[in-house]
Amino acid sequence: MKIEDLKGLVQDVPDFPQVGIVFKDISPLLASAKARKTITSLLATKYKDKEIDVVVGMESRGFLFGTLVADALDASFVMVRKPGKLPGAVVQEQYDLEYGQDTLEIQQHMIPKDARVLIHDDVLATGGTALATSQLIEKCKGTVVGYSFLIELDFLAGRKRLKHSPVHSLIHY
Amino acid sequence: MKIEDLKGLVQDVPDFPQVGIVFKDISPLLASAKARKTITSLLATKYKDKEIDVVVGMESRGFLFGTLVADALDASFVMVRKPGKLPGAVVQEQYDLEYGQDTLEIQQHMIPKDARVLIHDDVLATGGTALATSQLIEKCKGTVVGYSFLIELDFLAGRKRLKHSPVHSLIHY
Repeated sequence: MKIEDLKGLVQDVPDFPQVGIVFKDISPLLASAKARKTITSLLATKYKDKEIDVVVGMESRGFLFGTLVADALDASFVMVRKPGKLPGAVVQEQYDLEYGQDTLEIQQHMIPKDARVLIHDDVLATGGTALATSQLIEKCKGTVVGYSFLIELDFLAGRKRLKHSPVHSLIHY
Repeated sequence: MKIEDLKGLVQDVPDFPQVGIVFKDISPLLASAKARKTITSLLATKYKDKEIDVVVGMESRGFLFGTLVADALDASFVMVRKPGKLPGAVVQEQYDLEYGQDTLEIQQHMIPKDARVLIHDDVLATGGTALATSQLIEKCKGTVVGYSFLIELDFLAGRKRLKHSPVHSLIHY
């Protein structure tokens, strides 16, 4: 499958979750075993020679391809979650939303010191979540080797906020 | 790896998310590529000859092994999510919690009529979420072929509520 074939399986849903936003629905991609395997292979290939120790995926949709990419890279997988979901000692990072703030958490003991970390999510939009995640990894003394996204919304320029590490996305809008 | 080795990678966290509950933390399992691959293989093998068309995983932790098991079975993967997360037309199912109610949603068009569905989640506790998911699949005219869990809390007897289809869990407490 080619990138254009994958793109054909992303469904535009106008006015979701609110009026004026066109939501990119990846459900048809997930429903195709062939598409999933192509995506996983393309995402992993980019970082195959980068000695990735840990793939970090953000709740919830970052879990979908996160474990698949971790398997393909023979790496650890670690969850980044909303507050109150992860047990035990966690480190937190706050980040700004359009209105208000949100917080992400990670279990510090799951990131070995100096671990080489790949940050994965399904969509790169404004980059707020990805940037907060990279700050979590720094607090844990890990090294962010790169970012890996299935979809990037170029017009939101999230990539500009992540310029300290390489960003790779499969599908661009 | 044997089941006992996998069990050794599940961490007990007392009094989480509330006093008196011992949380089963699967983070160390996710952090081991070897453990993940063993789990995926053991979960998928059980349903290898059952002609599974669709693996359904429940938000959020059902996404972690859900896509891996779907890949192993060469099946579709479909998300079940909390309200307001899935775009377009959805069907809903309400279910009872200890205090109050919760709702799950699925995109009906993602379940082909008569599709043979495997329901996956990380933990089977009281069975409320799994039962609601099976009712969603029935509303979509799919067939629940079985349930697949990483962990089952036997003392909560959730299995008794799912007796219409076979239940398979790897690790029991």
